[in-house]
Amino acid sequence: VHRTKVKVVEDALDANTTIAQANRGDFDRAALRVVNLMSAPGAGKTTLLEAVLPRLDGVRAGVLEGDVQGSMDADRLASLHVPVTQLNTDPGFGGECHLDANMVRSALPGLPLDELDLLVIENVGNLVCPAEFRVGEDARVMVSAVTEGEDKPLKYPLMFRTCELVVVNKLDLLEHLDFDLDRFLYNLDAVHPGVERMLVSARTGEGVDELRDWLARLAAAERVQTPV
Amino acid sequence: VHRTKVKVVEDALDANTTIAQANRGDFDRAALRVVNLMSAPGAGKTTLLEAVLPRLDGVRAGVLEGDVQGSMDADRLASLHVPVTQLNTDPGFGGECHLDANMVRSALPGLPLDELDLLVIENVGNLVCPAEFRVGEDARVMVSAVTEGEDKPLKYPLMFRTCELVVVNKLDLLEHLDFDLDRFLYNLDAVHPGVERMLVSARTGEGVDELRDWLARLAAAERVQTPV
Repeated sequence: VHRTKVKVVEDALDANTTIAQANRGDFDRAALRVVNLMSAPGAGKTTLLEAVLPRLDGVRAGVLEGDVQGSMDADRLASLHVPVTQLNTDPGFGGECHLDANMVRSALPGLPLDELDLLVIENVGNLVCPAEFRVGEDARVMVSAVTEGEDKPLKYPLMFRTCELVVVNKLDLLEHLDFDLDRFLYNLDAVHPGVERMLVSARTGEGVDELRDWLARLAAAERVQTPV
Repeated sequence: VHRTKVKVVEDALDANTTIAQANRGDFDRAALRVVNLMSAPGAGKTTLLEAVLPRLDGVRAGVLEGDVQGSMDADRLASLHVPVTQLNTDPGFGGECHLDANMVRSALPGLPLDELDLLVIENVGNLVCPAEFRVGEDARVMVSAVTEGEDKPLKYPLMFRTCELVVVNKLDLLEHLDFDLDRFLYNLDAVHPGVERMLVSARTGEGVDELRDWLARLAAAERVQTPV
């Protein structure tokens, strides 16, 4: 019996994956490493970038700033003299709650890819949907502030599970909170065993050099093998 | 010339509005007032309910707890001896980032509507999409923690614009932050002029009686005229 083989094309309808791969191709051709930076609203992504970007000596860094609307964060970062492009998700009602690969792709023509070593894509503040959309990044970094409580890894597991680095921010407030850091790290290991983590205060500068070194290593890496 | 009149049915395709109206009808028949409680992750919605629910003497309150997955918050609130129903958005990939009217409707059979005066629907922690989906509520209350920064009303205007009350939480941390409360209130008035606001610390109890009184007044109201 001769059987006609049917090739199953998986993910054929997932346009986001297709476009993320195209983005990744463009980034690779430009020898550019890309970080997708995610967190809840107000966890301190922009303040962290304000602290770390000026310390990235020798790394040509740029920022793609994602927001529902406005350009407040982009304006803050532009004063650091790094290339910053604002991407607003607002055209639809209420605005999209995340960046996707197509939104990022639409912003690429405005970015000097060949002149950068590192592009940080600051996602919309949200612990749910940003984790569902890869945009072509080499690494995902998420920021979790100690003010948000120990339970967040358990309540938003996909976000904590799909990142390469967890930055625990606002450490300077720890002494004023009931936050149990050991419990947070226990919960983190429950959803993402062994994931790299850093304890940081963007405000005091504690731990910021460690984050700088991590980003500098990523920017210098030949090619990072992570799924698109 | 005789013209055929065409009646334009607006919102005909908006299933959420249709179902929200059905929910609202059920709530009204049970003489039940409903609050949609929203915030960013970790702003303190559950801690606020732990503080205020035991003080609601004479008001029969229940909670519908919305989370991507798990029942941590519902378990916390169940110890207060109020009826709590857990609603998880998780069946899809990664879980939905908000509650909508249909999800709430699916939970109604498990709630003793006729035995309640007030139902608090604790939404998924997210400042974007929950604001786009009415669920049949009488009032929207949003919680914004001072740890999140002064810029939040400007960055998530729909959320701040569509609520009846803004609870500014974690006031006990104010002295340890660079947060400019006047600037926050200025930004709030820029997107929602004159909206009612309360300064609260769920942790110390400051302002919690004011919130209790607000909820008690709502629960006692005959019928609140807000759009579904």
